[in-house]
Amino acid sequence: MNDFQFQNTTKVYFGKNQLSHLHEEVLKYGDKVLVAHGGNFIKNSPLYQKVIDELESNGVQVFELGAVEPNPRHTTVNNGVAICKDNGIQTTLAIGGGSTIDCCKAIAATTLSESDNIWDLVEGKVTWDKALAVIAMPTIASTGSEMDKSCVIANVELGIKSGINGEAIRPKAAFLDPTNTFTVPARQTACGGYDIMAHLFDMNYFVNAPKYPLQFNVVETLLKTVRNQLPIAIKEPENYEARATMLWAASWALNSFCTSGFKTQASLHALEQFSSTLDLTHGLGLAILTPKWMKYLLDRDESVADDFARFAVNVMGVADNEDKVSVANLGIEALQTFIKDELGLPVHLSEMGIKSLPIDEMVEKATHGADSLPHAYRVLTKEDCARIYHMCL
Amino acid sequence: MNDFQFQNTTKVYFGKNQLSHLHEEVLKYGDKVLVAHGGNFIKNSPLYQKVIDELESNGVQVFELGAVEPNPRHTTVNNGVAICKDNGIQTTLAIGGGSTIDCCKAIAATTLSESDNIWDLVEGKVTWDKALAVIAMPTIASTGSEMDKSCVIANVELGIKSGINGEAIRPKAAFLDPTNTFTVPARQTACGGYDIMAHLFDMNYFVNAPKYPLQFNVVETLLKTVRNQLPIAIKEPENYEARATMLWAASWALNSFCTSGFKTQASLHALEQFSSTLDLTHGLGLAILTPKWMKYLLDRDESVADDFARFAVNVMGVADNEDKVSVANLGIEALQTFIKDELGLPVHLSEMGIKSLPIDEMVEKATHGADSLPHAYRVLTKEDCARIYHMCL
Repeated sequence: MNDFQFQNTTKVYFGKNQLSHLHEEVLKYGDKVLVAHGGNFIKNSPLYQKVIDELESNGVQVFELGAVEPNPRHTTVNNGVAICKDNGIQTTLAIGGGSTIDCCKAIAATTLSESDNIWDLVEGKVTWDKALAVIAMPTIASTGSEMDKSCVIANVELGIKSGINGEAIRPKAAFLDPTNTFTVPARQTACGGYDIMAHLFDMNYFVNAPKYPLQFNVVETLLKTVRNQLPIAIKEPENYEARATMLWAASWALNSFCTSGFKTQASLHALEQFSSTLDLTHGLGLAILTPKWMKYLLDRDESVADDFARFAVNVMGVADNEDKVSVANLGIEALQTFIKDELGLPVHLSEMGIKSLPIDEMVEKATHGADSLPHAYRVLTKEDCARIYHMCL
Repeated sequence: MNDFQFQNTTKVYFGKNQLSHLHEEVLKYGDKVLVAHGGNFIKNSPLYQKVIDELESNGVQVFELGAVEPNPRHTTVNNGVAICKDNGIQTTLAIGGGSTIDCCKAIAATTLSESDNIWDLVEGKVTWDKALAVIAMPTIASTGSEMDKSCVIANVELGIKSGINGEAIRPKAAFLDPTNTFTVPARQTACGGYDIMAHLFDMNYFVNAPKYPLQFNVVETLLKTVRNQLPIAIKEPENYEARATMLWAASWALNSFCTSGFKTQASLHALEQFSSTLDLTHGLGLAILTPKWMKYLLDRDESVADDFARFAVNVMGVADNEDKVSVANLGIEALQTFIKDELGLPVHLSEMGIKSLPIDEMVEKATHGADSLPHAYRVLTKEDCARIYHMCL
């Protein structure tokens, strides 16, 4: 096991009856809060009014930043920074998905930096080590940003998604209420849930390194749990237990326990350039990619057969046998069928009318201009990446 | 899932090359530290001298409390309190097992209280909510006290083990170096490892409540991982991976993730009165108890058969079949064989020459004078407890 340092300080309030603690957390830092959200869907929800009431009735002054985009833009972050600086705000509260939480983290760091522009922090032009307090209230089980210390921001002018990372932007508190995810439509539930699976795949299920028994077994267990509970959350949107399991799984897939002692590999997240190129939902991009990436690797090189066969048996429930390549292929088919039939998602871009891709541009983004993806589970050359993208059409 | 709050702030330094961070953690709180340990075995170890050198060469003044007992006595705690109060010490550093860590927690809280006697805090005569900083350096994989916020102290005069519990005594940092456990003899390795398994059994594997998919599956996975890695750590004491897995598993069995959303049941820990009555090692007491407790419950009431059969199949590797009572019985036998043959521990007290027990006294302690153990996995009357103790002879 590699040496590692682990600490995750976020205080989690989990469940139906925790909202009354919100003002206590906010008032630890000051009496002014910026509440960020994605727009009218949240703003018109009963949750939003309950949050505002809880805060205002306890003496907290609320400022608002609406219309945070999926893949939040650096210009939106900068708008939030201006509000915080102008009003002496001490805390940012995100109500929404990972994008809103990430936006709040970026605002929090930029506000206490010497710049008014998050992109200066992203590019390292300005150093930072402090941030306003961040509080997260996720309304979808997906990124796990609520217990994690990084954020991803889109610069549309440059066509780049990038981010910052540091202990100061880890949320001080996270309010995880499964009932807040009841209204998430089936397709978004599926995409968010698949994002969790992809974090687990990338973080340390498919690793080209020794498998540490504890962390690896736990990751496999989380994968299997999500594989089984996600279809229930899709079919029965008000199933509390399934929604609760998904929400807690999202946090744990990204809270660093699973990666303790591992170097993360992240092939799928590097390859997932659909969201930045086509404005496709990130989780859907990952779902389309995974079986193609697995099939490509297996056909190229049978050294992956044992890992993929283990996945087939232990996660997808495929019957084991001696022929690991055949079991691995059955596992890949089972995953694709799961995505199509149980998650109700397309498995090829053509199903959405997308007939061609700017493949060269995507390959450049995936490899950051290098010759290959060298630190991935298996090294992928640019040619490999291009072929995998082609399989997704 | 029940509502819950979760936060675990301990900073973990895991691995072979982390000791250089020790003075950084100590100096966050002040330049005087009380180093507590169990006696000459630690004091004469190379580790001890390295710790003292690391601290002193970085300007930290070291005070010492040696001879902390297994089941640390309240009088020893009070000796530590006197040293801390007399010298204005800001931090306690435990080098040793759970007893030493618990002793440091108790010293830390008492020093900042209005009493000089830990037992005033235990009995609630004095309130407390602050503590000196606690830093833990476990030298055995066992209690998980290094990431947990409670401690157990023995009052030999009263014949009672009890403790205190609060966020202030959760260690600020824990240094987990698997090589520090290489010299733990086979029998203590076995007892410490079994203590981890018993935490998992009690904390939420055998629960008389709905099984939340995520937490329950993770607990089962941790159990299976310990079941497989502990015999390796016993046979190959310098196997880094096995020692590392055990050390990290100990922390995670008690760091509250596994119990999030559950009420813990703790039948085994309530029943384990051998350590306080016979001065037997706690983990050995638990190992002797578990199969008898399971057998007694199964013979009394087949409602446990499904749970025990699942344990048999998923943890002990017993082949499944339709007859759950028979599978459950095979699982209990497999556990007893595992304890005897793979852990090398006695499975009856008579093997250690213990031919009789003060059963009435033990029953009173287990039930705290009530009529039964009502919140256990299955309610146990005093008569039930007595019969289980009898089976252990």
